[in-house]
Amino acid sequence: MTQYDYHAIDDLIHSRIRLSILALLVTRIKASFTEIKNQVGASDGNLSIHIRKLEQAEYVSVNKKFINRKPLSMYTITDKGRSAFNHYIEHIESLLKIGELQ
Amino acid sequence: MTQYDYHAIDDLIHSRIRLSILALLVTRIKASFTEIKNQVGASDGNLSIHIRKLEQAEYVSVNKKFINRKPLSMYTITDKGRSAFNHYIEHIESLLKIGELQ
Repeated sequence: MTQYDYHAIDDLIHSRIRLSILALLVTRIKASFTEIKNQVGASDGNLSIHIRKLEQAEYVSVNKKFINRKPLSMYTITDKGRSAFNHYIEHIESLLKIGELQ
Repeated sequence: MTQYDYHAIDDLIHSRIRLSILALLVTRIKASFTEIKNQVGASDGNLSIHIRKLEQAEYVSVNKKFINRKPLSMYTITDKGRSAFNHYIEHIESLLKIGELQ
C-alpha cells in the first residue's frame, strides 16, 4: 500500500458529518443531540444515522435520561473513538503533508 | 455557520479517492493515469469517474498524446485546484485543531 492509497483513509471517520461530530465531541466532556445538531448543521434524520454508526463502532457512547419527562441523550467520545480519531488525524497529516517543509 | 458545520468541508475534494489524487498531484509536475492508479489504488473505472469530476471543476487538467500509437494521458493540478486544495487543508487543520495547543 502506497502513502496515497485511498483505502488507508478511515471511511468510518472520514464522512463529513461523522468527522464534524467527532471533531466537536473531542473538545467536549459531553454534548446533547440538539447541541451536536446545531453545531454540525445536519438534519435530525441524518444526524441520527451518523451518530448510530459511531455508536455501533463504539467511538461514541450515549447516556439517555429524562429531564422533566422529556428524553435527553448525551453523547461522549469513547477512548476507542479518541484513539481512532487521533490515528485518522495522523494519517491525514501525513497524506496532506501538514507540518512538513514544502 | 459554526466551525463544526459539515457543509464547510469541500465535498468535491473530500472524497477519499479525489483527496488522494490531489494529494499526489500537488507533489508532482504531472502524472500519468497509470501512475495515479498505482498510487491511489483505485480501479480504472472508479479513477476515471473521479478524475473526470476534478477536470470538470478545473482542478486538474489533462494532456493526451500518443506514444508509439498508444494513448497516454498526463494529469496536472491547475492553479485553481492548488488553491482549492490549500483552502481545504486550512479548513481541515482548523476543524481538527491541527497545530493548536491542546
